Amino acid sequence: MENKKLKIGIIGLGTVGCGVVKVLEKFNDIEIVSASVKNLNKKRDVEVQNLTSDSMEIATNSNIDVVVEVAGGCGILEVLKTAIKNKKHIVTANKELLARHGAELFDLARENGVVILYEAAVAGGIPLILPIKTSLAANDFKSVAGILNGTTNYILTKMEEENLSYGECLAKAQALGYAETDPTGDVEGFDAMYKIAILANIVFGKRIDVNQIYREGITKITAQDIKIADELGYKIKLIAQAKKADNGIDVRVHPMLVSKTNPISDIKNATNAVLLDGFPVDKVMFVGPGAGQFPTASSVVGDILSLKAEFDKGENILPMTVCHHSEYANQIDVNETKNCYYLSIVAKNVKGVIGAIGCACAEFNVNISCVIQKGDNGDGSATIIVITEETLEKDMNQMIQKLQNENNIQITNKIRVL
Amino acid sequence: MENKKLKIGIIGLGTVGCGVVKVLEKFNDIEIVSASVKNLNKKRDVEVQNLTSDSMEIATNSNIDVVVEVAGGCGILEVLKTAIKNKKHIVTANKELLARHGAELFDLARENGVVILYEAAVAGGIPLILPIKTSLAANDFKSVAGILNGTTNYILTKMEEENLSYGECLAKAQALGYAETDPTGDVEGFDAMYKIAILANIVFGKRIDVNQIYREGITKITAQDIKIADELGYKIKLIAQAKKADNGIDVRVHPMLVSKTNPISDIKNATNAVLLDGFPVDKVMFVGPGAGQFPTASSVVGDILSLKAEFDKGENILPMTVCHHSEYANQIDVNETKNCYYLSIVAKNVKGVIGAIGCACAEFNVNISCVIQKGDNGDGSATIIVITEETLEKDMNQMIQKLQNENNIQITNKIRVL
Repeated sequence: MENKKLKIGIIGLGTVGCGVVKVLEKFNDIEIVSASVKNLNKKRDVEVQNLTSDSMEIATNSNIDVVVEVAGGCGILEVLKTAIKNKKHIVTANKELLARHGAELFDLARENGVVILYEAAVAGGIPLILPIKTSLAANDFKSVAGILNGTTNYILTKMEEENLSYGECLAKAQALGYAETDPTGDVEGFDAMYKIAILANIVFGKRIDVNQIYREGITKITAQDIKIADELGYKIKLIAQAKKADNGIDVRVHPMLVSKTNPISDIKNATNAVLLDGFPVDKVMFVGPGAGQFPTASSVVGDILSLKAEFDKGENILPMTVCHHSEYANQIDVNETKNCYYLSIVAKNVKGVIGAIGCACAEFNVNISCVIQKGDNGDGSATIIVITEETLEKDMNQMIQKLQNENNIQITNKIRVL
Repeated sequence: MENKKLKIGIIGLGTVGCGVVKVLEKFNDIEIVSASVKNLNKKRDVEVQNLTSDSMEIATNSNIDVVVEVAGGCGILEVLKTAIKNKKHIVTANKELLARHGAELFDLARENGVVILYEAAVAGGIPLILPIKTSLAANDFKSVAGILNGTTNYILTKMEEENLSYGECLAKAQALGYAETDPTGDVEGFDAMYKIAILANIVFGKRIDVNQIYREGITKITAQDIKIADELGYKIKLIAQAKKADNGIDVRVHPMLVSKTNPISDIKNATNAVLLDGFPVDKVMFVGPGAGQFPTASSVVGDILSLKAEFDKGENILPMTVCHHSEYANQIDVNETKNCYYLSIVAKNVKGVIGAIGCACAEFNVNISCVIQKGDNGDGSATIIVITEETLEKDMNQMIQKLQNENNIQITNKIRVL
């Protein structure tokens, strides 16, 4: 019916960019006008006309309607701002950029009458952003929580299934290309932090300051923690979550013990899952590939097709995707949150230790739900596991501080329970 | 920003209709102009102005922009056709109507420049229809499969967890309001059949003849089948599925053994789940409440809000939701499909029976993957379970016919394996 093509420019022809080009091949009404790359001479398995090494050329090219940014990183900010000022709609997979500079970009887009679509920025191929903004628009959400980083979930799955250390499983993940040479962004929780910042923003309709998000990675999780958690009916997962609290929003990323009765505990390997809880919908969960060339391209091209369908209308297209809020959330400090905790303790001389734990807990209002002593570690010490009832984080930390001061007690891990 | 209200008329103020009215209370820009009900004098916990017992009044009321139909059944067809001819957009939760008369309604809507939204018609509160049409628009799907009926999944879950018979669990479901007094629509698979017809239509872009869908309910499933399946690593679920086949589309609803490694096997009670498999996205799963006043209202109101956001643009709103195809799928006859099978056999005199089964299988190209003999049933007979490799359904049925002719062999169940 429509003969007019949608003209796009692509910034970045890495794995995802090439996937987008391949998937677009069957859509005759989308034309790739130009693409920018870092290295013009690099061999690629796709062919794009008008390659340039200057991404600003894409942003200012008057023949381009939509800029598709799949380069990543915050270095591209000025280019996208220029594209928006040139009235180009944006499709991006750049989670870090949106988490750190979304406020500025969304304001600028609204002023310029263009939209920013970013289905691919969170949970790769899983449709999430658009469903939350459209099909679920009637809801007030209590919480959003999930596994948003495939690399760490792969590592934790392998540690569990093969009883291996974190280091061994990181090496496996690196060998398979699931983890980068410098794995910090994944294993320290930065990637999941950017994604939960983006989700919390749309789920609660407030801006999120990414620097205020509490973040803890998976590097301290041991095979023993995973084994004991399993015996107690839990899996250990890196959980990114945002919850409505009395006077604000509690956003954080850290490992958690997840009950095996929670469907999130079943999510294995590099798969992602997001659980939303709201009214009137109740709980809905989305599961799928969180990364990869083609799943990510599915979301990017879905956004491009959504723009294509509406593009000829000119103004005010895809109104439900526009960010209208500008107020920042009051983000709750992790010290003020309440959690149940898993505490692993190594005690040299067990005699009296349970008593010392009991006294410290009583002093700082920590109610113990379960204590397990795990035999002898072979060096005369024993491992003691404590699971607490809901406790204020700062009380918990004071209690731990107190126990650390005992000569014969070492707290080897503190993991929150979902 | 917008002061103009969207004016809606509601057909039906039952459980879902009242939920929609309650959820709409906080949306000041939606006005309920009128609602039609069967019984004007019935007490309801919501108040709506201009109640009428004539739904045709809603369809022709020139003050109404959108007709929200939550009455159910095919009796409402002419009313909705009239509403469409009067240029009203439709939001409906009516799966049977769409499955049986969707072709006519979608054609009429396109001719009249209005859209029909029906997020609530499949899997209640789970966002599914719109995400498939928008975020996943780049995909070619191989299959869609899932648990689309909460009542039967509740019954099967209870049978498994409490080792009870189908009849006992049906009674429980009826007592809790999960099953109706006449449970046929649920337990014989009609409800799931309507839903998979609607899903197959949008997933494959072909019209589906609901009368050609193979359908089998759960009434023949025994606690023993569930127990043996569990021992073999499977759960029994009522699966609705549509798959691309060599020369058409294979659409059916019947109980299946689902491997415990498949995430669908974990879906309990009245929860629904839908697994899509396509390129480029790979596998994505959606899980959530398949029914209920508020989850269903979440989807209905999500559709109303989507219309509200676009309504002022007049023509060609929500273009991605319009059904543009009119060709019917070539639906594969179940006899021509290939499946693995679970066969439960009661044999009076076990001596020679395994031999007879082996001979019959050989004659009709059925390869056995596993045979288990389950002790003595107490009456001198024994239960034998056969799991086959992939077999043509018509070969399987001929093999069963042959075995049935043996005096001492009775085939008590045939269940396909997912």
